[in-house]
Formats: sequence, C-alpha cells, structure tokens
Amino acid sequence: MTNGNAAGTEGHLFVILGATGDLVGRKLLPSLNELIARDALGPNSLILGVGVETEFNDESFRARCCKDLANAGVPQEQIAKTVSDKRIIYQTIAKGTPEDYKKLAARVEQVEKENGLPGNRVFYLALPPKVFPLAIAGLGNAGLNKSKGWTRLVIEKPFGRDLASAQALNQVAHEHFEEKQIYRIDHYLGKETVQNLLVFRFANSLFEPQWNRDRIESVEITVAECLGVEHRAAYYEGAGALRDMIQNHLTQLLTLTAMEVPSAFQAEPIRHEKVKVLHSVLPIKSENVVLGQYSTGKIDGQEVAAYRDEPGVAKDSQTETFVAMRLEIENWRWHGVPFFLRTGKRLEQRMSQIVVNFRRPPVWIFKPFDGKPIDANALVIAIQPDEGFDLYFEIKAPGQGVQIERSDLHFRYSEKFKPLPDAYETLLLDVIHGDPTLFVSDSWVEASWQLYTPVLENKPKVLPYAAGSWGPAAADALLSDLGRTWTKIL
Amino acid sequence: MTNGNAAGTEGHLFVILGATGDLVGRKLLPSLNELIARDALGPNSLILGVGVETEFNDESFRARCCKDLANAGVPQEQIAKTVSDKRIIYQTIAKGTPEDYKKLAARVEQVEKENGLPGNRVFYLALPPKVFPLAIAGLGNAGLNKSKGWTRLVIEKPFGRDLASAQALNQVAHEHFEEKQIYRIDHYLGKETVQNLLVFRFANSLFEPQWNRDRIESVEITVAECLGVEHRAAYYEGAGALRDMIQNHLTQLLTLTAMEVPSAFQAEPIRHEKVKVLHSVLPIKSENVVLGQYSTGKIDGQEVAAYRDEPGVAKDSQTETFVAMRLEIENWRWHGVPFFLRTGKRLEQRMSQIVVNFRRPPVWIFKPFDGKPIDANALVIAIQPDEGFDLYFEIKAPGQGVQIERSDLHFRYSEKFKPLPDAYETLLLDVIHGDPTLFVSDSWVEASWQLYTPVLENKPKVLPYAAGSWGPAAADALLSDLGRTWTKIL
Repeated sequence: MTNGNAAGTEGHLFVILGATGDLVGRKLLPSLNELIARDALGPNSLILGVGVETEFNDESFRARCCKDLANAGVPQEQIAKTVSDKRIIYQTIAKGTPEDYKKLAARVEQVEKENGLPGNRVFYLALPPKVFPLAIAGLGNAGLNKSKGWTRLVIEKPFGRDLASAQALNQVAHEHFEEKQIYRIDHYLGKETVQNLLVFRFANSLFEPQWNRDRIESVEITVAECLGVEHRAAYYEGAGALRDMIQNHLTQLLTLTAMEVPSAFQAEPIRHEKVKVLHSVLPIKSENVVLGQYSTGKIDGQEVAAYRDEPGVAKDSQTETFVAMRLEIENWRWHGVPFFLRTGKRLEQRMSQIVVNFRRPPVWIFKPFDGKPIDANALVIAIQPDEGFDLYFEIKAPGQGVQIERSDLHFRYSEKFKPLPDAYETLLLDVIHGDPTLFVSDSWVEASWQLYTPVLENKPKVLPYAAGSWGPAAADALLSDLGRTWTKIL
Repeated sequence: MTNGNAAGTEGHLFVILGATGDLVGRKLLPSLNELIARDALGPNSLILGVGVETEFNDESFRARCCKDLANAGVPQEQIAKTVSDKRIIYQTIAKGTPEDYKKLAARVEQVEKENGLPGNRVFYLALPPKVFPLAIAGLGNAGLNKSKGWTRLVIEKPFGRDLASAQALNQVAHEHFEEKQIYRIDHYLGKETVQNLLVFRFANSLFEPQWNRDRIESVEITVAECLGVEHRAAYYEGAGALRDMIQNHLTQLLTLTAMEVPSAFQAEPIRHEKVKVLHSVLPIKSENVVLGQYSTGKIDGQEVAAYRDEPGVAKDSQTETFVAMRLEIENWRWHGVPFFLRTGKRLEQRMSQIVVNFRRPPVWIFKPFDGKPIDANALVIAIQPDEGFDLYFEIKAPGQGVQIERSDLHFRYSEKFKPLPDAYETLLLDVIHGDPTLFVSDSWVEASWQLYTPVLENKPKVLPYAAGSWGPAAADALLSDLGRTWTKIL
C-alpha cells in the first residue's frame, strides 16, 4: 500500500527461487516487467533467476523470459526494455546442496559489487511447498538471511496443510529469518476492492456505525470458479477446496470484513485485528459444513467431465471441489450474525463477491399499498470479474400509487479508472518498499489452521453436484433459518 | 398517492373557477388532458370551466382550450381526443353575485343530470388569492359545498400572507367546507422525488437508523431559480421569496426530511408528524436570516436587469428575491443539527436539492498517507432539474499507496424509467380519488406561518447580490461554524 513511484524505491536485487516454474512465467515476470516499464523499481535493480537447471546462462535465461513474457501477452517493445537492458540474470542452484547455496551467495555478492547495489535483497520462493523448509534453511545456512542492506523472504501459499505443518513451517522460517523479514503472499489481498474494503469501512461514517449485529442480518462471501481442476490434479487431490481456497482467500475476506477498527492504518494494528477475529470464531459444527464434488454437467453450454474423470484424479476420490459453511463470530460486534463462506469449481459463473445483508425495516408502514415480501438493503462488494460495488435499496416506483421496488446504486472501478494494476504488481512493490500490511502474518496463518484443522480431521461426506450448478442443495439449507438462499446477483 | 388506473376513478364533474387564467392553460388543462389521454379519469367525467367572461360558450371555450393546449406543447391528436369529445364545457360566473353562484349550481345539476353523473364534484380555485374567501362563500351559500356524491375544494397557494390572514382563510373555508373536503395544493408534494423521500426514509433500514443527530451534521435545502420576476412583479412585490417559496415549498421539504416515522403511510398520521416538526422548530433569530435582492449580472452569459429595474417593481423596492436561513429543530432526533434553507431568483443555476451531510468519521486512521481534509459522506436528493439522488462517499484510488478520493453512487429516475408524470397530474388524480396525503393541512399552514410571521414582521436588511451569483456572501456565513459553505454540486 506504499507509494508507487520510483522515488521511494531503494536499489535492490530481486532473487527468484524456482525461476523456471509456471507461476514465474505467468504472473511474476509480467508483473516485474510492468513495474520496470512504469519505472517503479528505479534504475538500480536487478532480477536474479535461480533454478535447478544447470544448462541456462544469463543470455539463454533471458531468451526464455522473453518467450514467457510474450506468452503472457506482454507487448514486444516492453519486453525489449526489460530484457535487453540485461536486468535479468541467472544462477543455478543445481541440487540445492549447502555448497550450491554458497555459490548462490557468492554470485549475489558479486552481482551487487559489479552493479553497485546497496545489499538490499528479496528472496522469492516460487517453489513447490514441500521444498520451502529446505530452501529457507539453505538460504539461512549460507548467510543469505542477512546483508548490509535489508533482506526479505517472500513465501507463496500454501502455508502448511494443517495446524501442525503450518507451525512447523513457521518454525523453520523463524530459525533463519525474523518475522518482520517474512512476506507471505495471498494475492487476494493485492486486489483493489479488497484493499478498498478497509477504506470503505473506515473512511465513511455512513457504513461503520451500521457494521454490526444491530444492523446486519448476515454476510455471504463467495469465490466461485467455472474452471475445473485443469492441470493441477496432482496438487489438488491432496488439498481440496477447503485448503486451497477457504483457509486462505475466503478467510482473508472474512477477517477484513469482520475486523474492528485498527488503531492506525499500519501493518501491525491491522494484523492484530484480523487475528482477533479468528480467535472469536466459534468452533465450526460439522452440520454447518457442506462439501461437494462436481460431476458431469454443462459450462457455457459445453458438456464437461466429472472431477473423478479428470486426468490425475482417483476414480473414488473424496476430495472436495466445493465448500459452503456457516460461521459464528462470538464477539460484541457480530454475536448472532451468521457469516457464510462458499467456494467451488465448475460453478455456474465465475464470480467473487461479499454480500452484506442488512436487517429488514422493523416495521413496514407501506403494507396496505404493497403487500409483497420486503427486500432488505444489501451491499455487494464485487471482487471478480469486475471490481466495484452495488448498493441495493428500495424506491417508490414512479407514477400514481405506492409501489415499492428494488433499485441499485452501482459503482465499478473500470467505469471510472484506467485498468487496475494486477494484484501481484501491488504486492511485489510492497515487498520492495518494506510494507507488510497486505501480507499474511504467522499468527494469522496458525489461527486460521486452528479453525479449520478440526473440520479437515472430521470431514463431512462429500456430496456430488452437477458442473454448472451452484453446488449441492445442502448448501442452501445452511441459510434456511433466515428464510432465504444465497444471494444471486447477475 | 392512490392507484393510477381508471378502475378506481368514480364519475365526477371537475369545476375550475378562474378557467381563463394563466395557470389553467399552462398546467391544469395539460395535466387533465394527459390524465384523459391515459384513460385515468374514466369515461364518466366532465370538465366545467367557470370564468368572469360572459362571451364564451362551450364551443368557443373549447376552441380557446385547444389553443392553450397547443401552446403548452400537447400533441394535436391528444387535444382532439379531449376537446372534440366535448368533455369541456363553460359557464360564466359573471360578477360573482349570489345570483351568479345559483346559476352555476343550476348548471352543475343540469350537466350532471344530462350526463348521468353521480354528483361527485371537484371545485378547483384557480383564482387570485384575494378572491378565495368570496369564491368559497359563494360556493357554500349556493349549496355547492355538498351534493349527493362527494364534494372537494382545491385551493392553490398562497394560503394567506401571514398567520392572521391564513387563520382567516381557514376560518372562511371551514365555515362552508369540512377540513376533509379541502385540498390545499403545493405542487412540490407531487414531485416523484418528494414522494419518494418518505419511501426512501422508511423502506430502507440502511438510512432510517442514521437519520438523526448522532449521524447527521447538517441538512441543506436549496430551491434555486435562474429566472427573474418575469411578469409576476405585481404579485411578487407584495410577497417576496419568504412568502413565495420558503413558507410553502422549502418548508414542506423540511418537514418531510425531518419528520418522525408515521404510524401508517396515510394522510392523517403523516400530517400529524409534519406539523409536529414545525412545532419543534425554535423561533428564528434574525441573525440566522439573510435576505437578498438581485442587481444586474449575467445569466448564461447574458446581461440581465436588476430587480428594481424590472417592469412593475418599485425603484426603491425592499422586496427580497433571495432568502437563506438557519433553523434548529429542538427535538430528540435533531437537537443541535442545523437545517439550512435557501432560495432565490437569478441564481447561477436552476437546481432544487436536499443535501444531507453526515458527520465525519470521528477518527481518521489514514492520516499518514492522506493528509487532505476529510470529506464527509453526503446524500444529495435531487429534485430539479432532474430527479434522483447521489450518495457521496470515500474510496481508495486505485494503484499503489493509500490515496483516498470522493466518489459517488448515482441514481436518476430518467435513466431508469420513462418520463415522470407531471406533479399536477399526480395531485389532480389524488383529489379525484380522495387521497389527501400529498396536500397541505390547515394546521400545517398555520404552524408554518406561525414560524415565519415574526421574521416578516422584523425583516433584516435586504442585501444586494449580482444576478448569476449564489446570493449575498452573508448566506455563506450562516454555515461558518461548521467550517464550510453551501454544498455546490454541479
């Protein structure tokens, strides 16, 4: 959330471990490239790709990056600027022995010396999760956990797969790095609407006084995908939607929506309030969790395969591709207000949104004129595919008589601003600027796993649902005491 | 606010006293014509024009009406439908002697008999105010205050020119008619946005809990005109803006904005709450009133004359063409919240709006990033020239950093619905349907004059202002303790 111009950017070396991986080509390189193109990284910065491949040299790695960038849709003239400036270099980590890490350390020092860099370093772990501990230890043991400038470590999710593994990962990380050096990325936190959520809540006196159990009936948080498991079955079979989406993205949205006003708009106070929310969530009852797995069905009119027929998926897989759950936050602000989380693959529509359902008017003085059920006011915070929000409220339909109808006030960033920066651009620059506000803390990760590990250890039955639907019917039943179903806004 | 279809309309005779006057041709006839065109008056209705002119007969009066309607922009094929159906007839009231009123009564009975009408009658006084008492007594003494159906009396503003004259007018009216027969028209109450104000307030749980001194800092009500006095100097010189606009239109908006929730959405409970507001307004201090009179200046780039140079205006006229004032409503809901009223001729822009300024956030946690003064949230209810509303609030500007900027959620009836009915159409149909909700009660009129009569009796000095400006600078000073000026939304 730091300033976006180069003036605030110190010279640095950006080291990517796992530089030949999929995420780097698709997300990391294009974002770094865009930051360079808009001159946000300053003249005094280099990118050092590190991979197990021994056959690359600086030149051939740059050629590969060019191809990746072109595949990611980056215009040719921008690629030229990044790569031909020779701002990208390569170093192999080979088998990842202590000796290999020492070679990496030597290369880092040499590059810094040759280029007059001040010793500021980012180490970005774009690695499979099982390699995290080894890589962290490798860096630490080679003395790469400190320098004469600053040193920062960036970790991609997943941060563990349950409470014990998350604690173990944090422990390794803390053996070699201080918590303030560690930046755990959840790219949802880099989205404009998600950042705006706190501004929206705490810069507008219209909403904050309403943001509580007196005025709000329920909150729904949905992250819906149309895609199936794609090429990720190997990972996904062992993970499932609860680990892949709920524990991180949806729970981040939950804590941002529910948190108290922080004492300042800074990392520590905000992190404190987010963790506090998790500590107030009541243990999740198994009757409040619905798991689903997609069977065949239609997406955009096209017949698609069932999850169990996807390549790499077991024929009797019990992995959930859908989760809906109902949470209760037992604090003064939210007692009695259900929070509903829902995510799934192969749903009807790609759509991420937070719906805040306000309470209905306690008295309906328009009854004799208008007998229809009363709509409650609702605020919809749209995160995907188009960021913005809508406020649904009641107006008098024009003309004689008192007919009341729902209308909406509509706001989309895309209608008012030029295209938004990619979440990764925002987050990478924050790392370089040393602003941890939008990153995940150790205590948040552990509090989140503490909440969901009992659910994982005692999973309800996985129910089938047709691809292209909104999941198993049981997901609607979670809301039945409110006399309605999930808000469907198209 | 009654149902708009002909099914709810009983057969009736619509009698217009002063049928050859200006308002009739400009407003009344086009509205009646439109109601006939959309079949809202049913087949069993007639319009009887009554005027002092003795030379008209039904035929020649219809010809005159055709001309009026064409001048008012009504399409030829619609005029044909209304007038050639012979639904308009004429009767002279000559000198208005008791004998003349008896002739009118006889004609009414004859027309009803010939046309099989059930004896339901509207008497619409489209007369100069000084004739009101005579006309009311004339009707009453001729027995036209009752019939075998219903009889309703419609009075156009002004209802008196101070408390004593208003009381006298009410007294005459009550000598001959019951209060429930009397429909005092303030056409502002027929506007969609004004009607919607109550729906907006009482059908949306998002706003009503905020509608009080805890959440609202101030309210501004502006009715601004670009026009000068035009051809109305004869009346206006003896009236001024306080009588012409503040006592009726702006005070109606004030009472609708400030009133408590009525027990039901019906005339009596709503009238009760409106009057209650007026009884709670503290006596107006003369330092809280600013009067102005336009001098020369430019409107839309055109040089225009000063008020004192308009035809019919005295060279040393002390009549105000501008009023700004600050009121305090001393009840639990509004204690300490200033209400600002402002109206004027020859102002920069034609615009009527209610601005509800919410309080600023009590704490601004974004200070280190964003040092600019904090905007408060505001709800702007736009009444003219385009009906709708806007909600102003703060968002995070996209991109790196925390820059906060004002944005607005925007709603206009014209963008969502076909053209709105004219306020007169709404109100005339309500008279015929017997719904007094949108009309002004005797007690409201007297309470309003009670508030303003002391101001009229002790008028502050009238200050000059340039035509095309926003009035005397002293009007801004009324808000100075709030640290700002009148909201300017263009």
